[in-house]
Amino acid sequence: MNEALKSLEQAMAGEGLDALLVTDPKHVYYLTGFASNPHERFLGLLLKRGEEPELIVPALDAEAAHSASSVSTILTHSDTDNPYELLKSRFGGSQPGTMGLEKEHLSVARFEQLAAAVPAGTFSDIGALLRAMRARKTPEEAQRMIHAAELVEEVLRQGLEHVKAGVTEIELVAELEYIMKKVGASGPSFDTMVLSGPNTALPHGVPGSRVIQPGDFLMFDLGVYAGGYASDITRTFAVETADSQLVTIYNTVLAANEAGIAAARPGATFGSVDKAARDVIEAAGFGPYFMHRVGHGLGMDTHEYPSLHGLNTDLIETGNVFTVEPGIYVQGVGGVRIEDDLLITAEGAQTLTIFPKELTVLHL
Amino acid sequence: MNEALKSLEQAMAGEGLDALLVTDPKHVYYLTGFASNPHERFLGLLLKRGEEPELIVPALDAEAAHSASSVSTILTHSDTDNPYELLKSRFGGSQPGTMGLEKEHLSVARFEQLAAAVPAGTFSDIGALLRAMRARKTPEEAQRMIHAAELVEEVLRQGLEHVKAGVTEIELVAELEYIMKKVGASGPSFDTMVLSGPNTALPHGVPGSRVIQPGDFLMFDLGVYAGGYASDITRTFAVETADSQLVTIYNTVLAANEAGIAAARPGATFGSVDKAARDVIEAAGFGPYFMHRVGHGLGMDTHEYPSLHGLNTDLIETGNVFTVEPGIYVQGVGGVRIEDDLLITAEGAQTLTIFPKELTVLHL
Repeated sequence: MNEALKSLEQAMAGEGLDALLVTDPKHVYYLTGFASNPHERFLGLLLKRGEEPELIVPALDAEAAHSASSVSTILTHSDTDNPYELLKSRFGGSQPGTMGLEKEHLSVARFEQLAAAVPAGTFSDIGALLRAMRARKTPEEAQRMIHAAELVEEVLRQGLEHVKAGVTEIELVAELEYIMKKVGASGPSFDTMVLSGPNTALPHGVPGSRVIQPGDFLMFDLGVYAGGYASDITRTFAVETADSQLVTIYNTVLAANEAGIAAARPGATFGSVDKAARDVIEAAGFGPYFMHRVGHGLGMDTHEYPSLHGLNTDLIETGNVFTVEPGIYVQGVGGVRIEDDLLITAEGAQTLTIFPKELTVLHL
Repeated sequence: MNEALKSLEQAMAGEGLDALLVTDPKHVYYLTGFASNPHERFLGLLLKRGEEPELIVPALDAEAAHSASSVSTILTHSDTDNPYELLKSRFGGSQPGTMGLEKEHLSVARFEQLAAAVPAGTFSDIGALLRAMRARKTPEEAQRMIHAAELVEEVLRQGLEHVKAGVTEIELVAELEYIMKKVGASGPSFDTMVLSGPNTALPHGVPGSRVIQPGDFLMFDLGVYAGGYASDITRTFAVETADSQLVTIYNTVLAANEAGIAAARPGATFGSVDKAARDVIEAAGFGPYFMHRVGHGLGMDTHEYPSLHGLNTDLIETGNVFTVEPGIYVQGVGGVRIEDDLLITAEGAQTLTIFPKELTVLHL
């Protein structure tokens, strides 16, 4: 059985759950290995304390579920069946006292059908439990994330070859997303960002038709999905020449990135990573120009728990994967962000993104 | 005020609603013109019967909302505010008897917070009401859909230039999605499908690394989003030569497509469009090889109400936009599908997709 599923089963007693139902397809994949998009059809993984898990899938996915799922009891429903009646039948007339649900995923419309069929005493939310489990990657998950990071670096490497006279931000985005498919990624893990010149001063700028110019700073923020897991990298380059003010900003951000990575180790707080990077930027006098948290958890979602902001006192654990991405954004001048993905191991932080970080001047 | 919002306000009395809250960002856009992705933050359009509508947005979206929204009362909440308290304050101590919600969109977690703040007597679902409204496009919506159809045809035209010796299905997908960005679409409206040879016999096949071969049939099913609205077109081509069995299939599907379009007029049932196309295919002896409905509604979603299956006795109305996409799929031989997007007008059906449909042989 899947390690994550084992942990979830073990957590049921402590959480006071007699049963639980996982309905987010991403979490069904996480717990069983069966990836699917059921669209409007019902998909659920049902756990009753002390009993074998049961996976309920649309009939047309039965074959795919049998070949991919580590849960071997697979129940199916066709489009003319009521899946909530099937669910009800699994309780054989009795009702669970407390049933765990994914309350942030489940719609009110589905909940009303579910609660009518299985009127548990209490429905409690298992969102936080799953979030905490997902924050500690298994070795297999870590391997997938290493692969996703390798792929995005190959995309960036090939994409840089398209930085030529006359090219626009949006054309570079199109090239990068094209290369993602060519190298075998499932696709971008978020909207690919290429910003140039003054646009680099916008932390959430949108790529447009601006032509890349000599003297620009050029920022790439991109990620791919591969095997269900995301990568996320930012690198900033100079074009033809590097303005001295931008070089100062670049070196400050690079030092902040390295300080953040150095602070990332098991037992430290997530907030201390933000602080380590921010201290470097504040000491250089750029404090007001770093107006976002230093990073975010990374995994099946591009943004997931934990959030690496200064007030997060939760402790870093082995298996955590998160980004460290300080930046400085000066309106009218430009901006720099350098982002890496870290995997926490017993020894400290393993940097999954190894693309060179020294200031590099591109030629058109 | 937006026409759709006016209709929704007028429908409130008939539906017995004292208040309603729209929370799907797509529907907020539909009703106010303000498009946004609030991520985990609260976004809601609040209507109280007989009162001015109020739009509640995250503080960081205030400026964008003011410039785009046709609803002029805009209330904001910052990340440290509780948006449900803000909502509660709009009722000034009293409670609505019946409050409409989007139960398929709203999560249980959000509903619990909402119901604690505004304990209405009854919460009823407004999903069907919005679905029915969306099925009748306004002239402005129709213009956007015409534009989305024009763009996807330009993408297909340019994409065909990449059908060359050695090219694979997945490479053509990457080219098409690249061209989508170049021509100014927001992106694909669903996973672009390019299938070749025997793979064309799979109605839901996934593009792979198969190299296009002389003698293949080559099927393109693609769509784009532009201005928030989707297009969706399928064309099937022969490569170098056209096998006589495939020519027979092709001509049957084309005749079925044309029969379906001819049946699409105000006052006819949606089911009659399916029947008209299916009759042609059955008469040619291919009945068992057309195993899906003839089409689906199209608009802000690629698949929306109505569903054009044989049992749908709802009547076609002006403003409806839907696809007509009969197909024949013969395992081991190949398949053909021809799909157009129709806008229903008082005169009948306006075909938005005008890309040629006579059998065309491509050369590598």
